[in-house]
Amino acid sequence: MGQQAPQGKIAILMDGWDPRLWTRGFEACAPGVQVTDTLPAADPAVRYAVVWKPKTSDMAKMPNLEVIFSSGAGVDHIFSNPDLPEIPIVRIVAGDLTNRMSEYVVWQVLDHMRQGRIYREMQARSEWRELNQPAASAITVGIMGLGVLGQDAAFKLNTLGFNLAGWSRNPKEIEGVTCHHGQSGLDAFLAQSDIAVVLLPHTAETEGIIDHALIQRMKRNTPLGGPVLINAGRGKLQVEADILRALDEGLLMAASLDVFETEPLPKESPLWKHARVFVTPHAAANSDPDSLIPLMVQQMLDFEAGQPLSNLVDRKTGY
Amino acid sequence: MGQQAPQGKIAILMDGWDPRLWTRGFEACAPGVQVTDTLPAADPAVRYAVVWKPKTSDMAKMPNLEVIFSSGAGVDHIFSNPDLPEIPIVRIVAGDLTNRMSEYVVWQVLDHMRQGRIYREMQARSEWRELNQPAASAITVGIMGLGVLGQDAAFKLNTLGFNLAGWSRNPKEIEGVTCHHGQSGLDAFLAQSDIAVVLLPHTAETEGIIDHALIQRMKRNTPLGGPVLINAGRGKLQVEADILRALDEGLLMAASLDVFETEPLPKESPLWKHARVFVTPHAAANSDPDSLIPLMVQQMLDFEAGQPLSNLVDRKTGY
Repeated sequence: MGQQAPQGKIAILMDGWDPRLWTRGFEACAPGVQVTDTLPAADPAVRYAVVWKPKTSDMAKMPNLEVIFSSGAGVDHIFSNPDLPEIPIVRIVAGDLTNRMSEYVVWQVLDHMRQGRIYREMQARSEWRELNQPAASAITVGIMGLGVLGQDAAFKLNTLGFNLAGWSRNPKEIEGVTCHHGQSGLDAFLAQSDIAVVLLPHTAETEGIIDHALIQRMKRNTPLGGPVLINAGRGKLQVEADILRALDEGLLMAASLDVFETEPLPKESPLWKHARVFVTPHAAANSDPDSLIPLMVQQMLDFEAGQPLSNLVDRKTGY
Repeated sequence: MGQQAPQGKIAILMDGWDPRLWTRGFEACAPGVQVTDTLPAADPAVRYAVVWKPKTSDMAKMPNLEVIFSSGAGVDHIFSNPDLPEIPIVRIVAGDLTNRMSEYVVWQVLDHMRQGRIYREMQARSEWRELNQPAASAITVGIMGLGVLGQDAAFKLNTLGFNLAGWSRNPKEIEGVTCHHGQSGLDAFLAQSDIAVVLLPHTAETEGIIDHALIQRMKRNTPLGGPVLINAGRGKLQVEADILRALDEGLLMAASLDVFETEPLPKESPLWKHARVFVTPHAAANSDPDSLIPLMVQQMLDFEAGQPLSNLVDRKTGY
């Protein structure tokens, strides 16, 4: 704590968050910093915006905005804004966020492979019976999206003895991971994966990628009785009606979903009550202000000193 | 497969197992081997016994027995036999068994720290609400018992970002683990551990070690609202009435128990229905015959060639 204060004023535009967590955090981290969480009128002093799903009307009130900081790993919530100015967008890649995502992925992979759901059902019936238990070495986890998050999850699953496959847009080489890429590599990837973990960004190309056709191409004869889907990427990657249909047709054994087409997940969604679906409220890797703010302040100071920004979003690919 | 056959005859005395899994496994692994799963009368040809909770009457029928192989990591089920001959006892330390135990430990640690129970309850109510989520780096997992199993679990938890403490009978030095030992080190260990994982052997010294007095000495102010207990060691280490009392008094937040004072866990045990207890049927690290048999055959061949046996049980310490 006690970093130097950036000269530019910071606007906090965090939909769904208590903005005071952020304003107080910035004040504590960089005493003297100018920070606001409301824009009643245009404010020419604002040079930085820290955003989550910012409103179009707010974006129009910062004529001298120089850098946008996204509080999460995904940036689709920024690109959906029609008035997005042509300035750098920084995606926060915090070790904390990466570690939390890997905690969630490893947790859910283990819960499926160790048959947590069935053991919990047996406990409710006071039933003592050991299930046939494949070892991690008999299971291949396939990771869709091999960025920082995907690679960290792969490394940690590998340490536990799982086999790893990966799929990404462009070719990658990662130790311990059988990598596939592009549309042409998708079938080989799906045929290999007993559990598919989705950590893709949401772009025009990936929207709705997890549909009935994709699930039909997943590996059938897995040691778990069928393929398992874990989506901790973005809700817009999945077609929820198709996932429900595939579960009920027996094409999909089970799913862990942290993200949804509409968030919060509507009360009437059948996903809530499906016995083979585990729902969490977009909580796989939450952004902890205390760990993100010092990284943002440092980037602002670097920027003011003429240094290059890191973790810039590529506007062409959208991530 | 296709190892040489040991010359000595093998008796399979596996209470609670289908013995054919083992006899067929030995025949497939070492064609021509002599193997039996019944002892209708004394059999002087038997030189090796592969056992799980062997009957006293059977132990008396092998006058020329030379080596006992325990199919699990624990050997208390052998020492409880009053007619135990003074011959070597080999404990099977299979990589497979170690990996499976670590799968269970990491799975249960993550399920507690990521608040799986509460999220499952919220899902049942269709409730969308993000819980305050401590990171792995804010949690210390304490491991009681720092043998092969404890060290492997510690390493894997460390990779996920957890802090590690350890407790053992004798002093140990393990990278990344704050080690304590002996009765004098127990309080410091307990005061440090948000989640205690028990992987101790069952001996006269450790019997009933997890009692109300020990739970009272556990860390109170944990990021999870109270201390968590995971016992994947032996059921006789725990006093179940004390665990239930501590749960209801609010001294213990939650428990994952894979082992019990009496197994199978009796239908009437309140542990089955306790909302904050997860029960599994001694399934944390099951012994897969296919992975253990080649290790046993190799030990028999080494023994017949005059080589020393490995993983011998120390009769004095009982493990």
